[in-house]
Amino acid sequence: MEMRLIKSRSNSKATGAAMLYPVSVTVSSADTSLSFDTDESYTLSTSKEGAKLEATSVFGALRGIETFRQLVKRHLFSVDVNCSVSISDSPRFAVRGLLIDTARHFLPISLILENLDLMEMNKLNVLHWHVVDDQSFPFESDFAEHLSEGAFSPSLRFSKENVKKVIDEAYVRGIIVMPEFDTPGHTLSWGKGYPSLLTSCSDGSFGPFNPLNEDLYPFMQGFLQEVVDTFPTSYIHLGGDEVSFDCWESNDNITAWMKQQGWTNYAKLEGYYVQKIVDIVEKTLKHKYLVWQEVFNNNITLSSDAVVDVWKGTDWATLSAVTEKGYKAVFSGGYYLDHLNTSPDFFDGWEFYATDPQGFNGTQAQKDLVIGGKAAMWGEHVDVTNFIPRVWPRTSCVGERLWSAADVTDQADAEVRLHEFRCGQVAMGFNVEPLGPGSFCDIAGYA
Amino acid sequence: MEMRLIKSRSNSKATGAAMLYPVSVTVSSADTSLSFDTDESYTLSTSKEGAKLEATSVFGALRGIETFRQLVKRHLFSVDVNCSVSISDSPRFAVRGLLIDTARHFLPISLILENLDLMEMNKLNVLHWHVVDDQSFPFESDFAEHLSEGAFSPSLRFSKENVKKVIDEAYVRGIIVMPEFDTPGHTLSWGKGYPSLLTSCSDGSFGPFNPLNEDLYPFMQGFLQEVVDTFPTSYIHLGGDEVSFDCWESNDNITAWMKQQGWTNYAKLEGYYVQKIVDIVEKTLKHKYLVWQEVFNNNITLSSDAVVDVWKGTDWATLSAVTEKGYKAVFSGGYYLDHLNTSPDFFDGWEFYATDPQGFNGTQAQKDLVIGGKAAMWGEHVDVTNFIPRVWPRTSCVGERLWSAADVTDQADAEVRLHEFRCGQVAMGFNVEPLGPGSFCDIAGYA
Repeated sequence: MEMRLIKSRSNSKATGAAMLYPVSVTVSSADTSLSFDTDESYTLSTSKEGAKLEATSVFGALRGIETFRQLVKRHLFSVDVNCSVSISDSPRFAVRGLLIDTARHFLPISLILENLDLMEMNKLNVLHWHVVDDQSFPFESDFAEHLSEGAFSPSLRFSKENVKKVIDEAYVRGIIVMPEFDTPGHTLSWGKGYPSLLTSCSDGSFGPFNPLNEDLYPFMQGFLQEVVDTFPTSYIHLGGDEVSFDCWESNDNITAWMKQQGWTNYAKLEGYYVQKIVDIVEKTLKHKYLVWQEVFNNNITLSSDAVVDVWKGTDWATLSAVTEKGYKAVFSGGYYLDHLNTSPDFFDGWEFYATDPQGFNGTQAQKDLVIGGKAAMWGEHVDVTNFIPRVWPRTSCVGERLWSAADVTDQADAEVRLHEFRCGQVAMGFNVEPLGPGSFCDIAGYA
Repeated sequence: MEMRLIKSRSNSKATGAAMLYPVSVTVSSADTSLSFDTDESYTLSTSKEGAKLEATSVFGALRGIETFRQLVKRHLFSVDVNCSVSISDSPRFAVRGLLIDTARHFLPISLILENLDLMEMNKLNVLHWHVVDDQSFPFESDFAEHLSEGAFSPSLRFSKENVKKVIDEAYVRGIIVMPEFDTPGHTLSWGKGYPSLLTSCSDGSFGPFNPLNEDLYPFMQGFLQEVVDTFPTSYIHLGGDEVSFDCWESNDNITAWMKQQGWTNYAKLEGYYVQKIVDIVEKTLKHKYLVWQEVFNNNITLSSDAVVDVWKGTDWATLSAVTEKGYKAVFSGGYYLDHLNTSPDFFDGWEFYATDPQGFNGTQAQKDLVIGGKAAMWGEHVDVTNFIPRVWPRTSCVGERLWSAADVTDQADAEVRLHEFRCGQVAMGFNVEPLGPGSFCDIAGYA
């Protein structure tokens, strides 16, 4: 494969003369599958004669092309383009993700696709799609078609066709779409179409899934089968966070059953449900999964390839405990985009930049079990009107932390590069917000 | 003056039939000047036969037309349109402002104009334009043409023509453009073109204006003359906030002069400068002015019609002291948009909504001296990419607080109206952000 790029020569800038600059791209493997195990490494060398990009996989080549784009953009009109560059690059972490939340507010497909472009520029490879939550259920299910009655409105739903569009557009950018259907909490919207899934609380309201409803498990098996059939990813996210016990405690049937079991701690009831679900996914669906950290903290027996998603801030104790037990972990807690520090002279992306997923005390073997991290854009205050500037460029800081070597920590150096990177994105029409006071892009109308 | 509005009748919605709905607008005064004293009151009555809007000034009529627009939008397709409505309305406060900051980041004219549309919908009447600051000087001056060398770049400046465009477009929306050229602090960008205006600090850097430079005063007189000639407003804002004394203290000439005066407190030096400036504006330029609260706190002798801008949070003590001395005040401190509370279940516009400019202890005469308030969008983290969603709908809460009666404080009621108002703006293409989790606009692609 060979690309030919039209390049303006620095010494012919005024006349607009250009020459062809050959870029050869070589991919050694015909495997085009995309997973956490995909080899994204590449080598790139440039000289006066052209550029040579070599990678094992097409996705490694994609990463190299992005690097090449950034090099060309930076040096197109300077003599530096004549310098030899030799790059051997690969990601430090296999999982470099961004969580989007389409339940607290709906996000239109056009926005999700725009966001994929920015993810690719930042070499992120996992879109963690938190599809549904208490507030809405925008996913159209064929298995249980009443579920989407939990959408805000019929026009605010994701059809299978639109989901496929996201998956396909993500794939060609080297991005895995990892869906999360969070249970047994955060599920009120499921009850719009299927009220019996939920626990009836004594005050007449509804609570989390009712683990004693034995119909729940075949329902979830059928639904999760549809999920794994829809999303071609080896890992799905099963949620399992923030289950409130108030409603369970108020329900007479549940109280009686707990007594019968001799249980007083409702975490055991939560575990009863979660254990059944993870077993269904592992043993019946033969699928791999992630869970939020509560599931681990609650002593559930996980499959050996399960990944624990640590989200409670910089919870080094849990990261240490998870990896000590030999489980894999991803670290989200350090990169919560919904937390926003608006101090006048501070860009809070640098807090993300300074937070290393392996920041806990542990052996090298433990640290190697941390397979990545994710920025998380929980949607309580975010929809199409403000998503892009809230997510970017802060997530760029997470992107570099997860791709680059652990010792790439010079904020002053990163600031110069990030500002330039941001201005390039603004020039392309993305509403990527500024890094702090006094920064400006020299584009008429922007700053 | 009579408008004719095409109205779909509720009983003919399906066929799209429409009838003409006469709206008569009567303005009793031919005075089209716009100031803090402009009468913005109006009466509006509707019946099956049509609507009647009466106002003293054209600007009162504008406010009534906006109310009518909101009524029609809300009730167009319901039988309510046949109800009689009788409204007698006027603003509680004469000054209902929004501060924009074009110095920390440049804001393009197109954005400022877009923002004027939203201000009009919210019945705001003052655009406080903080034009320049340490970071940049985007204003093109004819009096001192080197000043705009302090702009970020030649393309990021406001020409006189563009300033006039903002003033004209604001005027037809009933909005006064009140410029602020803040001195003696926040002035580093003035030094790009005129270094001698600034104090040389002992470490080689520059500090605030040098009050001992006697050329400074004729310079400021000439420049402020240009400002009052450019902006047709009876009040200009002279700044005067946050002067750091470090540089003055480090300067040998200033130290010697202070000693000669027998002064040890550098606030006296600040006062020396500010007193000269306010006297120039009052006595030579014959113009009215606002100052930030430090000027009052520093015991400067102000003109009797000066307005003190209280910005340090809910500083009731200063509001009380200012009005006790008989000065007018505007309250900005409760409405700082750069402070952002991103708690998941909270919309921080309600903090603004609950903050009354007359919240201090004082006599009725004192409270009457508080002539209004302003939301302030300081620009450290804001430019064209994120300005609209950061400012709106939070500033709508300030708008209602400043227009409506003091006892209109029902947040639950306001929430319903504000959400609907916001969705209407989103439908018009404004990126007004959501109020909190679970709110959605039933527009395809938005939520």
